Amino acid sequence: MGGDVMTIYLDNNATTALAAEVREAMLPYLFGEFANPSSPHSAGMAARRAVSEAKAQVAALIGAKPADLVMTGSATEATHAAILGALRVIEETDHRRDHIVTTAVEHPATLALFDDLRQRGWRVTILPVNRDGLPSLVDLAATVTEATALVSMMWANNETGALMPVEGASAIAHAHGALFHSDAVQAAGRVPVDCGITDYLTLSAHKMHGPKGVGALYVRKGAPFHALIHGHQERRRRGGTENVPGIVGFGAAASLASLWLDEADLIAFLRDRLEQGILARWPGAVVNGAGAARLPNTSNIRFADGRGHPVDAEELLMRLDRAGIAVSMGAACSSGDNEPSHVLTAMGLSGTQAAASLRFSLSRYTTAAEVDAVLSELPALHARLIAA
Amino acid sequence: MGGDVMTIYLDNNATTALAAEVREAMLPYLFGEFANPSSPHSAGMAARRAVSEAKAQVAALIGAKPADLVMTGSATEATHAAILGALRVIEETDHRRDHIVTTAVEHPATLALFDDLRQRGWRVTILPVNRDGLPSLVDLAATVTEATALVSMMWANNETGALMPVEGASAIAHAHGALFHSDAVQAAGRVPVDCGITDYLTLSAHKMHGPKGVGALYVRKGAPFHALIHGHQERRRRGGTENVPGIVGFGAAASLASLWLDEADLIAFLRDRLEQGILARWPGAVVNGAGAARLPNTSNIRFADGRGHPVDAEELLMRLDRAGIAVSMGAACSSGDNEPSHVLTAMGLSGTQAAASLRFSLSRYTTAAEVDAVLSELPALHARLIAA
Repeated sequence: MGGDVMTIYLDNNATTALAAEVREAMLPYLFGEFANPSSPHSAGMAARRAVSEAKAQVAALIGAKPADLVMTGSATEATHAAILGALRVIEETDHRRDHIVTTAVEHPATLALFDDLRQRGWRVTILPVNRDGLPSLVDLAATVTEATALVSMMWANNETGALMPVEGASAIAHAHGALFHSDAVQAAGRVPVDCGITDYLTLSAHKMHGPKGVGALYVRKGAPFHALIHGHQERRRRGGTENVPGIVGFGAAASLASLWLDEADLIAFLRDRLEQGILARWPGAVVNGAGAARLPNTSNIRFADGRGHPVDAEELLMRLDRAGIAVSMGAACSSGDNEPSHVLTAMGLSGTQAAASLRFSLSRYTTAAEVDAVLSELPALHARLIAA
Repeated sequence: MGGDVMTIYLDNNATTALAAEVREAMLPYLFGEFANPSSPHSAGMAARRAVSEAKAQVAALIGAKPADLVMTGSATEATHAAILGALRVIEETDHRRDHIVTTAVEHPATLALFDDLRQRGWRVTILPVNRDGLPSLVDLAATVTEATALVSMMWANNETGALMPVEGASAIAHAHGALFHSDAVQAAGRVPVDCGITDYLTLSAHKMHGPKGVGALYVRKGAPFHALIHGHQERRRRGGTENVPGIVGFGAAASLASLWLDEADLIAFLRDRLEQGILARWPGAVVNGAGAARLPNTSNIRFADGRGHPVDAEELLMRLDRAGIAVSMGAACSSGDNEPSHVLTAMGLSGTQAAASLRFSLSRYTTAAEVDAVLSELPALHARLIAA
């Protein structure tokens, strides 16, 4: 990637490499089969069939029916479509329900949407999380009432990998007649995800070795929904010419992800080897959220200098980058603004502790040799950083 | 495309073939350079640069600055973002303006959005069109007042190719302090489009030999705007991981389109040859909207049977399809519902006249030999159809 040095890519929660199988599936739709699936001629109908088959592949990954899936231009769009689509119906049909609940560690785009909804008059409860990044179901049960329209909780956190208590959260929401949405972008393809406990579920192709620019939303049959983007496509639930190569690629990626779920233990083995190796080589390093059940591929580590003080992880990130090792500080998606991670600060870390943390996220393409190469760089990096 | 028969593709207003140059530009981002532009490492920064360069290419096509462009997942999203983004600000800052204006021949997705806005309490005026598909600026001037928030008028119609009076419409809107949006999806890359007369302008990649799944919205600097999809990307105007290969492909397509604008006369020559050839070979055939200035590539033709009655164009379309010729009935985007074209009926055609019409849309890849091959099929098709 980008240059002469062979990069060791440990930023798979930001995005993943396109699988060769996905690329092969997409190429015919980039090279020759370009018709619009809405066109009535043979070429259009062939494109329509390709889209249908791909949707069935994505649906299979989460135990859904193809008809319950709405393909979108991104997972962020899917989450907006779910939340805004549900609330639009609720406010017209059941306006006693004026309350929505989410957690402090959702994706920043989701939190920005909730902030916007608060400005539009919704009462918004943002659940705190504990030291391991988990919200309390006791807190949730205490806040959800018959006035709650929607509970939105991610399936797994993007920065720490913490697996959230979605099953319990769904049960609590449903016991009060509230709807339940889960952003499963980081979970799907890495751990089993069953749409059955949700009313709305968000998926992304590019986090599972599929293409960028494609997301999907599961909408339970019968769940309230109003289109965010109008048009006849996707049974009038999302307008816009279908991104045929992208959707075909998503289908192929979802099929692979289903097969690869068996390999989760292997990825966890490498993640643990990396994590334990770092802790052994870097005095004072701590795993953020180590007490939570986590995604098999994610490790978020806080680094200390020789006196036990938090280091500047940006400096460490740049040094790793120069050594050909790509990692992130918290979410790639908020790296632009240089604020400490909202996830880590919600877990009780100080701003400087959060800014001393790096996220390592692996994929099925990560090798033991790469993990060992990272570990072998550490002593020198540590020496340089405490000398600086 | 799709099968053994070499298709003569005359459905370029539905979607276009990816240009070879666009494919070449995209392939590196499908094969190796997959990083997230928000990632802070070298690979991420390289992706960021690729996106920036592509945005500059798209901006150049319409005379915009790259910073004024917001990349989206489709043109339909872009139009929704423009209209909803403008109105969200207007309703908070200037609620005397509760009126919006559009035309009867906009894209069905846009009209569905306006219908939704009416349900949300906006006063909506839908301007009628004349026999050639053009709205009257006198009508527009009579309806726009200081209470008008927004006028939305497409640059060119997708079904007939009619070029709309956007310059005059923009002047009328602005004279009353209203905002002006134009959906330039069919126009951009086919005729010169200058964003300067608009506050918001919608573009699509896949109508100019770019990839599906990418649109763009021009937002004039200082124009009111509130994000439809939150997130830090695109200067907080559109969240979601950037579709790097898609955006790079759009950039390449826009650059080609700028070069190819010179070829408009050649495409118009072939379109006219097709159109005149059909009229000469099919007694009673009529060009819908022939009196309007039109896109160089579009011809919408109404077919009559031996007694001068409207034919069933769907039957004709299927026979052409079997002969390897791909055309559409009106908009591909509304073909699903089998209703007569809203554009043609707005122009005064009866339902049966509209259902007797086919759209032929050419591209720079259309050849004279293809046009002649279509014309040579016509006498036999005519004979069969009047015999049926």
